[in-house]
Amino acid sequence: MKSILVTGSNRGIGFGLVKYLTLQPISPQFLFATCRHPTKAEALQEIAEKHKNVHILQLDVTDFESFGSVVKNVESIVQDEGLNLLFNNAGISPKFTRINLVKVEQMTSGFMTNALAPLMLTKAFLPLLKKAAQNKSSESFSASRAAVINFSSILGSIAENSSGGLYPYRASKAALNAITRSMSVDLKSDGIIVTSMHPGWVKTEMGGRNATMTVEESVSNIIRTVLSLSEKHSGKFIQYDGKEVPW
Amino acid sequence: MKSILVTGSNRGIGFGLVKYLTLQPISPQFLFATCRHPTKAEALQEIAEKHKNVHILQLDVTDFESFGSVVKNVESIVQDEGLNLLFNNAGISPKFTRINLVKVEQMTSGFMTNALAPLMLTKAFLPLLKKAAQNKSSESFSASRAAVINFSSILGSIAENSSGGLYPYRASKAALNAITRSMSVDLKSDGIIVTSMHPGWVKTEMGGRNATMTVEESVSNIIRTVLSLSEKHSGKFIQYDGKEVPW
Repeated sequence: MKSILVTGSNRGIGFGLVKYLTLQPISPQFLFATCRHPTKAEALQEIAEKHKNVHILQLDVTDFESFGSVVKNVESIVQDEGLNLLFNNAGISPKFTRINLVKVEQMTSGFMTNALAPLMLTKAFLPLLKKAAQNKSSESFSASRAAVINFSSILGSIAENSSGGLYPYRASKAALNAITRSMSVDLKSDGIIVTSMHPGWVKTEMGGRNATMTVEESVSNIIRTVLSLSEKHSGKFIQYDGKEVPW
Repeated sequence: MKSILVTGSNRGIGFGLVKYLTLQPISPQFLFATCRHPTKAEALQEIAEKHKNVHILQLDVTDFESFGSVVKNVESIVQDEGLNLLFNNAGISPKFTRINLVKVEQMTSGFMTNALAPLMLTKAFLPLLKKAAQNKSSESFSASRAAVINFSSILGSIAENSSGGLYPYRASKAALNAITRSMSVDLKSDGIIVTSMHPGWVKTEMGGRNATMTVEESVSNIIRTVLSLSEKHSGKFIQYDGKEVPW
């Protein structure tokens, strides 16, 4: 895999992915780590100093107008290689709410960040994703050819929801899952995999201290699973270990 | 059933529901038909002139600030009876779009009208829905006690999506389905049923001429199905004839 981009990579699972990927025997040639405030992302900067394949890019995923210049920036580095793998990881965390408490602003900002941003960012990166897929047009579908991983959550599974509430988070992740499915159909002829990924319940700022997995456990599983993706996984909702999650 | 409210009742399935309900042997005591422009809703006005139980109310479902006064208006008519049945029917129709064409504005307006509006309107009517449920607290769950029907669509089923595209519609209806599920959990202790309903492919302005069902077939099925709802249907996605639809 030549090039990978991870959004929201200043902390949590995004940071864990970047860190894990730099430590692999064959680290990707280009590893783009985006975050809103690069100057504040000190741990990420440390990694980029040690690993010259890591490029930190400023990106607020809800600043749709800025996507064009980010794509240009990436293109100037990868040139004709395109982008193999896009991790739409940046997201807003679940806030406790019940129907009597839910607010319009929570709903719209959840939708913007968790559902609309991955859609518009993928749209913006389509030329680079298609280029990467085209470069390996003789190969079958795989993440080392071209893939989009949308970070969803078990909380976005409608079937698995037995505790209610969490409207902004659940609705936005269900919308993202619907987007994943449509993208997988729309991008099939281009040879691009699109999959929704539940990372597990992970000890991050979002997951909290009671979470069952460390970031390292989650990201090592995710990378192993992503490397095993094939055409049959496109348009599916899977978790870190590859197990399918109901919609 | 004493009181029913139908949003988007100037045409299509909303209008069909109001018309059908006025023609039943036992028409509801209060039938609230909301639409954005009552003065332009001539067919609805004709019905209201013939049937004194029909009350036309002005309501733009995306004008969240106005919900308080609509609820007050309904309360002044139903008084201590509350509201038994809320049909969240108003919605934006699917527009053709593929990932390379999708626009931010389509996505946000789809989400606002198809997902956020039903949530916020249900929240606004909660005191009246709870009152209706409380008045029949000895009865089991039913639509004649208290229920919310969120009009979803088979196009909002992620599992059934094999043709892709339609991002604003599919994402907003999947989000609505997630909202239905959380509401069903949150309102269980109040005795309120919440169900997502696929009305079928209906010959309306939205469904087009090639649709397989007439409005009359759809609404007569919907009413029969709604009247048979019990606790087990709450938090489910069903179609006009009661058959379950996958998420």
